[in-house]
Amino acid sequence: MSIDGAIAALKPVLGDRLSTAQAIRDQHGANESHFAPAPPDAVIFPETTEEVATVIRACAEHGCPVVAWGTGTALEAQHLATQGGISLDMSRMNKVLEVRGEDLNVVVQPGVTREQLNEELRATGLFFPIDPGANASLGGMAATRASGTMAVKYGTMRENILALEAVMADGSVIRTGSQARKSSSGYDLTHLLIGSEGTLGIITELTLKLQGIPEAISAATCRFESVEDAVNCVILTIQSGIPMARIELVDGMMVKGFNAFAGSDLPEKPHLFLEFTGSPSGVAEQAELFGGIAEECGATGFRWTEKTEERNELWKMRHNGHFATATLDPGKRTLATDVCVPISRLAEAVLTAQSEAARLGLTAPIVGHVGDGNFHCGVRCDPADPEEMARVGEFTHILAETALRLGGTVSGEHGIGLGKQKYMQAEHGPALHWMRAIKAAFDPGNILNPGKLLPPGNL
Amino acid sequence: MSIDGAIAALKPVLGDRLSTAQAIRDQHGANESHFAPAPPDAVIFPETTEEVATVIRACAEHGCPVVAWGTGTALEAQHLATQGGISLDMSRMNKVLEVRGEDLNVVVQPGVTREQLNEELRATGLFFPIDPGANASLGGMAATRASGTMAVKYGTMRENILALEAVMADGSVIRTGSQARKSSSGYDLTHLLIGSEGTLGIITELTLKLQGIPEAISAATCRFESVEDAVNCVILTIQSGIPMARIELVDGMMVKGFNAFAGSDLPEKPHLFLEFTGSPSGVAEQAELFGGIAEECGATGFRWTEKTEERNELWKMRHNGHFATATLDPGKRTLATDVCVPISRLAEAVLTAQSEAARLGLTAPIVGHVGDGNFHCGVRCDPADPEEMARVGEFTHILAETALRLGGTVSGEHGIGLGKQKYMQAEHGPALHWMRAIKAAFDPGNILNPGKLLPPGNL
Repeated sequence: MSIDGAIAALKPVLGDRLSTAQAIRDQHGANESHFAPAPPDAVIFPETTEEVATVIRACAEHGCPVVAWGTGTALEAQHLATQGGISLDMSRMNKVLEVRGEDLNVVVQPGVTREQLNEELRATGLFFPIDPGANASLGGMAATRASGTMAVKYGTMRENILALEAVMADGSVIRTGSQARKSSSGYDLTHLLIGSEGTLGIITELTLKLQGIPEAISAATCRFESVEDAVNCVILTIQSGIPMARIELVDGMMVKGFNAFAGSDLPEKPHLFLEFTGSPSGVAEQAELFGGIAEECGATGFRWTEKTEERNELWKMRHNGHFATATLDPGKRTLATDVCVPISRLAEAVLTAQSEAARLGLTAPIVGHVGDGNFHCGVRCDPADPEEMARVGEFTHILAETALRLGGTVSGEHGIGLGKQKYMQAEHGPALHWMRAIKAAFDPGNILNPGKLLPPGNL
Repeated sequence: MSIDGAIAALKPVLGDRLSTAQAIRDQHGANESHFAPAPPDAVIFPETTEEVATVIRACAEHGCPVVAWGTGTALEAQHLATQGGISLDMSRMNKVLEVRGEDLNVVVQPGVTREQLNEELRATGLFFPIDPGANASLGGMAATRASGTMAVKYGTMRENILALEAVMADGSVIRTGSQARKSSSGYDLTHLLIGSEGTLGIITELTLKLQGIPEAISAATCRFESVEDAVNCVILTIQSGIPMARIELVDGMMVKGFNAFAGSDLPEKPHLFLEFTGSPSGVAEQAELFGGIAEECGATGFRWTEKTEERNELWKMRHNGHFATATLDPGKRTLATDVCVPISRLAEAVLTAQSEAARLGLTAPIVGHVGDGNFHCGVRCDPADPEEMARVGEFTHILAETALRLGGTVSGEHGIGLGKQKYMQAEHGPALHWMRAIKAAFDPGNILNPGKLLPPGNL
């Protein structure tokens, strides 16, 4: 294996778009979570699929690790070059290639970000609904099977990708899926690549489903005396079949963070942030049905808005949860947990998280895409404080075990990366063997994001 | 390789539930389409996952082909033992194991049929929406990535399975997915098994998403002067975002078949069969929006019904399309085509099908899940007439090439099986290599439904 050999072979081909400058390497080795920095040996900025293939072929020849990099906002270190090698920065492959309005889909390069896409779609009456907190790249969102606040209505990246182009570990370029809305032709390579975190292939093009912008949109916030009341309201709402566009839990501690970061004045109690979409009469009907359930669950302080700017402020505040969390225990890092459980077990999971955080003396505000049974604790921590990190470790371990005991998953939308590998065996059991078999068949030289997703071990 | 060895090893274990009787073998070697019969050497009726594992282990040891059999209604011969061996009849694994109403899902064994499931769900207010024409088994529907009339609203089997249990080629039992509504944990083995046609593993348990029975349901039929008008109405309806529950095309020739088989009296012109679901006001709103579009496209003769029995009659008629087709050119078999194209290209595809059938002198009535861009021609043919079969071959080839040229797929919902293998290279190109890599890694002895899905060729 020779990282230097790969870099030496590629430098003449890519010129300035291969950088070994320390600042560039450091930028690509940083992360927003609690992981130690892990800079690559070189950063390459490809502009075409063919260039990606050229890089992969050289990496295959020299046994050099290659890690795709979108916007660097992954929360489980998927983008870090923990074994060195090449970081493949996809930000120059950022074109919206074709908007197919008639077929409600769009073809994009992987470096397009979700906000850029919706900006470019503005005139079409269509939008792409998947919205993780960060303004992530769509390639990265596909690779980590991301979701966000609208998954309760539209699904995650899993449900919203029609077709992919990818470069495989031998440098070959494949296309998966088709432009048709459904197909029963062959093995589902599209879904195999979604969530594979760059370990099976590098996504170089995506065909994404689009949605029509609803005729009417209404957002609201309301508050509860306890988290349990708020979660029970969510459970009843989902079970009643109201087609919620968004239903987000924000606990009292997180409200405090939002108030500090966004300058809002919400009472520091558990809140639900809501959105209803559809026809004007449909929205009114949904809001009334929800209002009835919420009132029974003890909701008060409803604030409604139909104004676009106010709605945008509300969801911007929600998407800035990561930064709001940082106001609560300044000077520390945030480890975001990400369990997802069956909706009927959500109250049990959230209450466990709250009581365990209190018991362990941790600052861990909660936000959650609770309509899907998914919630995050933003655990403030200092990676240099081993005693605190031990308590954080105990907390995340209890949460993971709780999620698995309740029939859920250790990762709702952040992926596995480095941090969750230790739960792969517990969550997947004998299925893990077949994941290893796929990795071995697709990337026998283990050059694609080595050391991620799969825990150490042999086939 | 020794089929006899496997049968001899398994007979003492399974007793009466391993049959080599000619009648049983013939039953499991028959098909509803145009393929030659292909009986297995033995039929086994397992009752537990452990028994399936025992069978697979013996087959692995002796190199004996093993083919899962649900209800024998596959249209591309997926269930036929074309290389002999063992047919694994899953009909005794037919229990609904657990209805989790609070989480809107259900755990079933693979031999449960879709009608049985909905019968057992009747008291719960929930239902499972995927409805291929036949009363197929849910294991078979998963294995072939089936869909039906409601996919336009609820998606296909691809979107409606949360978790699977499967026996792999080495006899190991795995569980994929979880009970949570979403997950970003590991490679998506659930979707890899869905549509794999029993070539990667045998599905022994499924966790399926359920839907609430809508408060209001309204069905309708209307007719058009031309297929083009009907299809344009569909395209505009889908593009307008009306959340259709069903929108099915029936051409004039197929209406003739329905009238003959079901005793209906519809004018022999192209029809759309429609269903709207939601709240009473939502249904009224959708129906009005659709009515406006349909009128602009020249629709006449609207017949509406809110009565359950009349609706059931309508959809029963639609689901019996296979038998209605058989009335049109008696004494022949039906080859069902199954292309799916982007909705914007649907008119071009349907008109090509009609004109080519006429040019080739074939009886080929059309029905279609046109909201998805998917339609079927029920080509009547006599497998013993080589001249006719040559014309049928030309017709299906033109349809497949048209679908691929328009960005679609050769198989919307019937799978690949035997009949569509010849298009796998054209549809998937270099991606086919990676499908072969998965098969080689998962089933190195090639015992699981050998000769299906993948065309002949090496890795």
